[in-house]
Amino acid sequence: MRVTVWNEFLHESRGDETVLSHYPEGMHAVIAEGLRESLGAEVEVRTATLQQPEHGLTEDVLADTDVLLWWGHIAHDQVADEVVERVHRHVLEGMGIIVLHSGHFSKIFKKLMGSTCSLKWRNGGDRELVWNVDPTHAIADGVPNPILLQEQEMYGEYFDIPTPDELVFISSFTGGEIFRSGVTYRRGLGKVFYFSPGDQDYPVYHHPDIRRVLANGVRWAQPRKPRTHLPADHHPAGWFE
Amino acid sequence: MRVTVWNEFLHESRGDETVLSHYPEGMHAVIAEGLRESLGAEVEVRTATLQQPEHGLTEDVLADTDVLLWWGHIAHDQVADEVVERVHRHVLEGMGIIVLHSGHFSKIFKKLMGSTCSLKWRNGGDRELVWNVDPTHAIADGVPNPILLQEQEMYGEYFDIPTPDELVFISSFTGGEIFRSGVTYRRGLGKVFYFSPGDQDYPVYHHPDIRRVLANGVRWAQPRKPRTHLPADHHPAGWFE
Amino acid sequence: MRVTVWNEFLHESRGDETVLSHYPEGMHAVIAEGLRESLGAEVEVRTATLQQPEHGLTEDVLADTDVLLWWGHIAHDQVADEVVERVHRHVLEGMGIIVLHSGHFSKIFKKLMGSTCSLKWRNGGDRELVWNVDPTHAIADGVPNPILLQEQEMYGEYFDIPTPDELVFISSFTGGEIFRSGVTYRRGLGKVFYFSPGDQDYPVYHHPDIRRVLANGVRWAQPRKPRTHLPADHHPAGWFE
Amino acid sequence: MRVTVWNEFLHESRGDETVLSHYPEGMHAVIAEGLRESLGAEVEVRTATLQQPEHGLTEDVLADTDVLLWWGHIAHDQVADEVVERVHRHVLEGMGIIVLHSGHFSKIFKKLMGSTCSLKWRNGGDRELVWNVDPTHAIADGVPNPILLQEQEMYGEYFDIPTPDELVFISSFTGGEIFRSGVTYRRGLGKVFYFSPGDQDYPVYHHPDIRRVLANGVRWAQPRKPRTHLPADHHPAGWFE
Repeated sequence: MRVTVWNEFLHESRGDETVLSHYPEGMHAVIAEGLRESLGAEVEVRTATLQQPEHGLTEDVLADTDVLLWWGHIAHDQVADEVVERVHRHVLEGMGIIVLHSGHFSKIFKKLMGSTCSLKWRNGGDRELVWNVDPTHAIADGVPNPILLQEQEMYGEYFDIPTPDELVFISSFTGGEIFRSGVTYRRGLGKVFYFSPGDQDYPVYHHPDIRRVLANGVRWAQPRKPRTHLPADHHPAGWFE
Repeated sequence: MRVTVWNEFLHESRGDETVLSHYPEGMHAVIAEGLRESLGAEVEVRTATLQQPEHGLTEDVLADTDVLLWWGHIAHDQVADEVVERVHRHVLEGMGIIVLHSGHFSKIFKKLMGSTCSLKWRNGGDRELVWNVDPTHAIADGVPNPILLQEQEMYGEYFDIPTPDELVFISSFTGGEIFRSGVTYRRGLGKVFYFSPGDQDYPVYHHPDIRRVLANGVRWAQPRKPRTHLPADHHPAGWFE
Repeated sequence: MRVTVWNEFLHESRGDETVLSHYPEGMHAVIAEGLRESLGAEVEVRTATLQQPEHGLTEDVLADTDVLLWWGHIAHDQVADEVVERVHRHVLEGMGIIVLHSGHFSKIFKKLMGSTCSLKWRNGGDRELVWNVDPTHAIADGVPNPILLQEQEMYGEYFDIPTPDELVFISSFTGGEIFRSGVTYRRGLGKVFYFSPGDQDYPVYHHPDIRRVLANGVRWAQPRKPRTHLPADHHPAGWFE
Repeated sequence: MRVTVWNEFLHESRGDETVLSHYPEGMHAVIAEGLRESLGAEVEVRTATLQQPEHGLTEDVLADTDVLLWWGHIAHDQVADEVVERVHRHVLEGMGIIVLHSGHFSKIFKKLMGSTCSLKWRNGGDRELVWNVDPTHAIADGVPNPILLQEQEMYGEYFDIPTPDELVFISSFTGGEIFRSGVTYRRGLGKVFYFSPGDQDYPVYHHPDIRRVLANGVRWAQPRKPRTHLPADHHPAGWFE
């Protein structure tokens, strides 16, 4: 299984001290490390960032990626439309995608959802409890119910997403807000998992339960088959076409 | 539209002072009054209780009921199986049903759901915020987001229900718990709405937003057509049978 | 209720004789007439076509439209991106949209769905039976089960759409194919209904059951509230924001 | 993985010649053989029948079963309520269950669904095409789209089941009928798969694609965790209870 972790990598490269205290080599490095730790030989993890040519997401890289993780925040508009189209096409052809936290407002997530994807937020160090409402779901395997995050940014409803295919996690925050924090969708042949925990100001991606969820998510999102084009509109010669 | 509000009516008839302070003539009286107030001439509201012959739910009463509301708590086992079967049959034939609060553990709700319907609870006067996650839903029409209940019993996940057809409300509680507090289902030709706010120890059914939700729920749950038997397994003579 | 029926109006204006035999003044004229007949004073119906300035879908027209019906086929690419963005914004703000038949491949439908929306087709005069699998749904009110269309273009699976919020109709065709022919979604505050019966070569929009479904669909898709912008990502001052 | 195939075993033991021509040692024998063939060392398959003490479904057998397959037809009423309760409890605690064909009218399926589960049928040797409408689903892995069954009993809509969690297969029949022939649900901690192909009068369980679907279904339905009681309603001492 080949995984690519994409990070906008701006908070870190601009030298934000809080962010660097948690993620000295970038958030992607910590996310990738967590996946390697959890999945071991089962997985080969690469990273890619906004700053690289084609943001590190060339046709070759995507064709060789089973699951893509996406973290972006302050530079959604800097992601080239051509790369977004390419990622979108690969998802529809079967590549899994896990969109993280502020990636809810990325071009690729909005394109997959078809809605505004807007939400409420407050960066006030709320305690977040991530409750599992689907105990049979593979993504929730082996994590406590709830997951406890001592300090997090609040993300609150109304979160303007399509009705999820599956609702796995709902979070509560100290302030009383709730958020559908783990939701899945299918788009074409690709599986989509959005998971909200993970702000740059908090060490969320070091948390063992969050790492476990991401590892579960990667396993869940991997394609069952070789990547394929869904046929365009066509006139079949018979049933089996 | 003809509505029947069913109440176990035991806390009140046994003289529980807290309950009587909020509901001197029974919870059903306050729920019925709220529906009359909200729906006016659109609705004819009756009540029925456990103590009546056949619990007030004779074949005639049910055949003349478009939507049944159900509140029970400490006497689920005293409800006759025959009456449960009768209510179940009427739901499958098109009667709407709104199951309230501790009715989650009633025989009729378990029979409609097919699961244990168990949950967590704590009667500690938590503040409950009832968040709407489906802003187009008729049941949420005209209520603020969130609804604020200053004091309530906590109901928490994991709530062992089937995946809802529609998830309308999610509540948070002071203690950090969350709960899928407004969910809908179809069973046969009948529409089912479960709404959790409403403990006997708190004046929840006097709250104008809660009354509005129940009125919306009654409108939503009413059958579109005359009550009918779904055909049993049968061998059709042609397509239109 | 104000309805706008949009038609690409190319088959007709180019003088295709088969199409003109069924729709001498355009498909939009027949669809609009059917809605007026079914909904009477309840509705005010306008039409708009590709050839008009801004395709007849100016900001003013859309702001004054509760439900938009969309029929397009051979000129999806000629629809200006700016108009597609405008329609999309209005849907997210609450305008209902009913996408018809070959509109499955329109820019607006693909943008709302996020998938390829591709399917199979065969224009061979198959008999189509439109089966209702949700008898409580308002869109199926008053139509026989199945609806019988003596001659139709076949549309077959796999239809590459997201999992529907509600699956109302499934069609079978003489050739043995099946198709999810009536599906609903929510996007933002807007309701979306896709209904596949309706090729230009057959008099489908004269069929009384199809007209009834479209009238039901218009009622179902209308917004509950005045059009509103969903708030963008924001930092709330309190719960009720 | 331990699998138990349950069969009512009446058509065969009564000597029905058509049935015996396809299933000389009983339908359970052929289904079990198919699972052994497909899953090999991954699985240990047992069978049980109505005629055995406690219908072969003792507490010990069920506690040692990961996935139960259920085939019944003319003797649903002869299944003891006590055994039905036991199977139901095990499903809620995590045992997977695959209900086959006429098992749609079994006590256990109705109890899990909460609806009448009625449908239409015609035993006229229709050709059945089983179309996959969820190409990412594990249950459809490796089977052609559609699966072709030259002769089958027709099962038609309206099939009175709750809205499925997942709709995997839709069948068409020569007569023009359609049927939601592969649907999944969760009940408690257990996964439920209903799959309609499989009448006693046709050699359906010898068909390699049908065998593949059943093997996929067994893998899909197996519990993730050791069997456990979901907690009854309880007052938690803290979040993690």
